[in-house]
Amino acid sequence: MATELPTPTQLLVRQEGPVLHVLLNRPAVRNAMSLTLLHELQQVLHHAEADGQTRVVVLRGAGGHFCAGADLKDMAQARSSPVAPDQLATMDDPVAQTNAQFGHLCAAYARTGLATVAVLEGTVMGGGFGLACSVDVALACDDVVFRLPETSLGVLPAQIAPFLMERLGYAQAKRLAVTAARLDAQQALALGLVHEVCTADALPQRLQAQLTQILQCAPQAIAATKALLAAGRFAPPASLIDAAAQAFARAARGPEAQEGLRAFAEKRPAAWTAAAGTP
Amino acid sequence: MATELPTPTQLLVRQEGPVLHVLLNRPAVRNAMSLTLLHELQQVLHHAEADGQTRVVVLRGAGGHFCAGADLKDMAQARSSPVAPDQLATMDDPVAQTNAQFGHLCAAYARTGLATVAVLEGTVMGGGFGLACSVDVALACDDVVFRLPETSLGVLPAQIAPFLMERLGYAQAKRLAVTAARLDAQQALALGLVHEVCTADALPQRLQAQLTQILQCAPQAIAATKALLAAGRFAPPASLIDAAAQAFARAARGPEAQEGLRAFAEKRPAAWTAAAGTP
Amino acid sequence: MATELPTPTQLLVRQEGPVLHVLLNRPAVRNAMSLTLLHELQQVLHHAEADGQTRVVVLRGAGGHFCAGADLKDMAQARSSPVAPDQLATMDDPVAQTNAQFGHLCAAYARTGLATVAVLEGTVMGGGFGLACSVDVALACDDVVFRLPETSLGVLPAQIAPFLMERLGYAQAKRLAVTAARLDAQQALALGLVHEVCTADALPQRLQAQLTQILQCAPQAIAATKALLAAGRFAPPASLIDAAAQAFARAARGPEAQEGLRAFAEKRPAAWTAAAGTP
Repeated sequence: MATELPTPTQLLVRQEGPVLHVLLNRPAVRNAMSLTLLHELQQVLHHAEADGQTRVVVLRGAGGHFCAGADLKDMAQARSSPVAPDQLATMDDPVAQTNAQFGHLCAAYARTGLATVAVLEGTVMGGGFGLACSVDVALACDDVVFRLPETSLGVLPAQIAPFLMERLGYAQAKRLAVTAARLDAQQALALGLVHEVCTADALPQRLQAQLTQILQCAPQAIAATKALLAAGRFAPPASLIDAAAQAFARAARGPEAQEGLRAFAEKRPAAWTAAAGTP
Repeated sequence: MATELPTPTQLLVRQEGPVLHVLLNRPAVRNAMSLTLLHELQQVLHHAEADGQTRVVVLRGAGGHFCAGADLKDMAQARSSPVAPDQLATMDDPVAQTNAQFGHLCAAYARTGLATVAVLEGTVMGGGFGLACSVDVALACDDVVFRLPETSLGVLPAQIAPFLMERLGYAQAKRLAVTAARLDAQQALALGLVHEVCTADALPQRLQAQLTQILQCAPQAIAATKALLAAGRFAPPASLIDAAAQAFARAARGPEAQEGLRAFAEKRPAAWTAAAGTP
Repeated sequence: MATELPTPTQLLVRQEGPVLHVLLNRPAVRNAMSLTLLHELQQVLHHAEADGQTRVVVLRGAGGHFCAGADLKDMAQARSSPVAPDQLATMDDPVAQTNAQFGHLCAAYARTGLATVAVLEGTVMGGGFGLACSVDVALACDDVVFRLPETSLGVLPAQIAPFLMERLGYAQAKRLAVTAARLDAQQALALGLVHEVCTADALPQRLQAQLTQILQCAPQAIAATKALLAAGRFAPPASLIDAAAQAFARAARGPEAQEGLRAFAEKRPAAWTAAAGTP
């Protein structure tokens, strides 16, 4: 990693060529997300977006669990902070501020131009469930258990809701929230919550296969396509034609298309594939 | 039930603690929805929302069928009512008014803050199909048959369309409408039209399991989460962060979160779970 | 077909009563879509919409493949056309213009009031993948392979993106684009990308079954329902009630409903079913 990033204290990061492996590293609390962890996850992403090297960010949890959600201690502290009555439940309320930070984190991962992968094992709960919904590719170990306990605790899956809807659609998100649902790997696969399930033994190889697949794609093309998809989520298709055509022309006249189409004609891997060390 | 609700004539309602069981009760016509039935379904819901007791509404049909759709007699009568030529197909047209009432019914069930469950058996057709798509949890008996006959009769699944899209997405809703589709229980499950399928024998127990699951969740938290999801359906995630954070803070500072987090710490069921008589 | 349509050169069209069979006919290049082919597909659709006879358009590819996507020669030519620097990647850029034509084609098929079916065999790639997502009913042969190679070539699935989202939802569309995915028939079925899979032997019979199903539905009712669904994709259900009620009243007072409801009461097929020669 480039030199300016302060060493994270609750993450382990490992750069392997174009892939940044980010390990949530609080195994004693199943990687519950403290404010420090949130902040470091966001810093690591911003740094990766700017380092000119990283093309894929892989999120995973230490100790066999992905993430047990928000750290309840931070919420308890925010709740006990003094707040004027007219600031309660406004953005001046520390509880709202703390919660919003998690929303900004999910939004940053959901909207980055980098490709993102989550490796989901053991507990994936609350905020961890939301983070898992924000990545492009979700690979699950067959021991995974998803839980959405918020409403059973009297709180809301508030910042998670938009990403549940992105991944599962409105109706399934609603059902899961109303039932504080628990899902195993096969149920998650059937809902499209994860894209692949494998055994713990097969995990390294399946992750590599997903990365190989992603690294065959040109990084600027991925970023531009993700931007088009996000921009087009809430717009009638016909209204998108001109913007899409202009984005296409920018890409088609750029260096990636030049290399990609030439490599295709010459029946060889494109430069970005070769550089990544993938076949 | 509280005393102000006039006794319904085409519904059987039974209150069991926080659960209101509502039985569409026109078995001779497979519970086809007359205007009276529509009106009573809406009244019962409004009453339940205000009674301070009901947390879940369960919809079911008498006689082994859920609902065969709108009662064609009402439409025939609306069509034969006198209407000025310049009022045809405006909101002054009795046909449009009758149809709109069904839209308001579905919208009321789709947007209530109460949790809603449908028990789907036998025929689920037309308007019954739409109503089934408006609830939070759909439990189906393995004998269920969904049909969307409107276009084959020369009319439109007009008020149903939005709820088909909510449940199934645009493309499946379109396909079903264009083919006047017929779906069995397993097909419905695969599409996410229903969330669970069981035998007639297992139905009481599976319904109880779904209710137990729902009743472990705090009622205000469910209502607030459903409101967030509805508000967020058509908005980019990043635009929702502040409103979600404020809703979260309101909940986190409220009595439900206080009880829920304390119960969690003390490893005991929360008060709302205990009150519902669930383990 | 009516007389005004110039004979297409890259399509084979065959009218069978209310069904227009359109065969993409460039088997030597797996029916890659040239600008001529695009233009002819659009002409054929516009003609069918106006001919007063066609109710269903069936798209299929000659030679065992549906379509290998855009013809790269056209893009190469557009890229080598002279263009002023300030016109690059604007709508004055021939690359953008060429690309936009494909978007208009997909939008025309996605929004036609006619029913549309695709028979998907062999290669379904890039633009062919997008076209497959634009129809109402997708019937696949078990040998089908879907590929989305754009990002691996350094270009974008730009005009395809909205139709991928319509068919698959945002999250699956994003995953497929980021991984330049390859899907077989069963994977496509699981995602809802196709609605039915069968063997090559069963294909004629399964296509006929889908057509029979569609032809039992009244053509104006199909068109009006498709329009309602498209209009309602991005609007809260309650906001759609009046427009839906008025569309319903127009249909219910029209000749199709009169015939459809009478045929139902008389237990006989409606005129449009009988006219199509279906039981």
